[in-house]
Amino acid sequence: MKIDIKDAHELVRQAMSRFGYDDEQQTIIADHLIDCTVRGFDVGGLPRAATLVERLRRSEPFGPIVVEQETASSIALDGGDQLGYIVAKQLTETLIEKARHVPVVAGTARRTWCTGMFTYYLEMVTAAGLVGFVASSGGPTVAPHGGAEGRFGTNPVAWGFPTPGQPIIWDIGTSAAMLADLSFAIKTGQELEPGLAFGPDGAPTTDPAAALDGGAIAPWGGHKGSGLAISAQLLGMMSGAEADPPWLTDMGFFMVVMDPNAFSADFSQRAGDYGDWVRATKPVDPQSPVRMPFDRSVVARDATLAAGEIEVADEIVDLLRDFVGSPA
Amino acid sequence: MKIDIKDAHELVRQAMSRFGYDDEQQTIIADHLIDCTVRGFDVGGLPRAATLVERLRRSEPFGPIVVEQETASSIALDGGDQLGYIVAKQLTETLIEKARHVPVVAGTARRTWCTGMFTYYLEMVTAAGLVGFVASSGGPTVAPHGGAEGRFGTNPVAWGFPTPGQPIIWDIGTSAAMLADLSFAIKTGQELEPGLAFGPDGAPTTDPAAALDGGAIAPWGGHKGSGLAISAQLLGMMSGAEADPPWLTDMGFFMVVMDPNAFSADFSQRAGDYGDWVRATKPVDPQSPVRMPFDRSVVARDATLAAGEIEVADEIVDLLRDFVGSPA
Repeated sequence: MKIDIKDAHELVRQAMSRFGYDDEQQTIIADHLIDCTVRGFDVGGLPRAATLVERLRRSEPFGPIVVEQETASSIALDGGDQLGYIVAKQLTETLIEKARHVPVVAGTARRTWCTGMFTYYLEMVTAAGLVGFVASSGGPTVAPHGGAEGRFGTNPVAWGFPTPGQPIIWDIGTSAAMLADLSFAIKTGQELEPGLAFGPDGAPTTDPAAALDGGAIAPWGGHKGSGLAISAQLLGMMSGAEADPPWLTDMGFFMVVMDPNAFSADFSQRAGDYGDWVRATKPVDPQSPVRMPFDRSVVARDATLAAGEIEVADEIVDLLRDFVGSPA
Repeated sequence: MKIDIKDAHELVRQAMSRFGYDDEQQTIIADHLIDCTVRGFDVGGLPRAATLVERLRRSEPFGPIVVEQETASSIALDGGDQLGYIVAKQLTETLIEKARHVPVVAGTARRTWCTGMFTYYLEMVTAAGLVGFVASSGGPTVAPHGGAEGRFGTNPVAWGFPTPGQPIIWDIGTSAAMLADLSFAIKTGQELEPGLAFGPDGAPTTDPAAALDGGAIAPWGGHKGSGLAISAQLLGMMSGAEADPPWLTDMGFFMVVMDPNAFSADFSQRAGDYGDWVRATKPVDPQSPVRMPFDRSVVARDATLAAGEIEVADEIVDLLRDFVGSPA
């Protein structure tokens, strides 16, 4: 169904209020999910909220976010099992502040989960004129190249660069399908495309439940992409997160933030000029101009915000409304 | 022809001695090229030396390596147009030393070229118990996804992680073919596989000379891989390197080095255990066990060093011997 963006935001806030998240935290979570949706990353929006509710209903209450180690150029957080949107945002703000004093800084967070779309944090980093990198680890839902069993998460990785205008943000998942795609397919009763998953027996499958229940998602990009996913898993594990955590727990988060002025002058301007030069590449198909990473996302967000409403599967909205309307 | 590894090493040293590189520098260059060869990255070895000779014969004498900016956590070098093997090794040594005092450091080098195989530097980093990342930029020989004109170099990227034994090093090129592959194909009169290159007219080609002379190499990994290559180009440019430098000049080099102990305990041990767990993944093909990044390289190096000799195309050896034997 079509649903007003403001109503969707409020629905997420109300659902999260049931789990002890305060007003500010509810807003952080809702902002992040709605930002996913309006950029066209639909499964990261209200369908994701349904998964969060499912996870939070079976969880113990979360603890505080604790600084485990800190230097001028580094910080390691224990997320207290809080939602990643909150933990990762706090880490991002801390690293941006540190980068005012030290040009190269990095931070990690363990005991958190669902840090969402890394573009969200890299927009914060690049808005401060800084360059950033993000990677995360997760439970073994994705197989390495040549394997048929999970050994790492869907592990997004992202780089962000400031320009005088719209930043350049490259943000990808390292698996052939996202976990959110599988959860969404299960909730809506759809099959997967062939080639994306293995069943518990190690044979290819199109059943999303089989892939998640003892099977595995295929990696993206053959041995090269599989190695990138392994790198992301190790970077997440550098937080202290487990290599093999249970479902939606202890997903390690890793971020580097750098001030480009420590290396050369006018980087932001040069990055912007470079983006324009790439967009001006002679296209293979004259009808399809070359895009920079993030271009499609910005166009989608502007159009959806202007329209004011989003399309969400009926069963997802019903599930959330039922939950919010149920006795506490 | 088969050539003894020691003879190949000496041949490279003698060739480099003709361009003002001193004894130590000759050894650094020869060590790097021979290490490429013995790992199975054949075109990075003696064929590469032939390209270096071609480039150095038309160059002005190089200048000193100069520190342009430095803080406790960062350094920016001007490579003085010196060969990348020398500049990148110096930068790596500097960052490893800095990381003894500050847990997160990064450095760049501009005005250098041919920094070679990043695994070489990441073996140094991981041997010191540190985690490292490397990326570089180069002249516009590779097209962005959807484009048919060069906008970035073949831009390798690499992550390295220490373990108690053999490190985990993921080191890939972000183009569908390496520049060294094209140079080698031209030198030996071979055609490219289809799908790897565009000609000057923007149409697909299998002619390596057409790809380099006004055409472009295709990116690896569709829009995801193309975005990674763009990220590497921007990281290299952060050194101050040009977006669009002439052939084999001003290839920007970027490195991050981190002490994992700033984030969690026992990372090296945990990374090693993780590698073993990945290798134990149930394979898709029972005859093909799952490998970790770097495994194949280590096996190849051990076997080639034990054999003591390498296979090099006759015309490459002849070219280098003629050059070394010619009047100075």
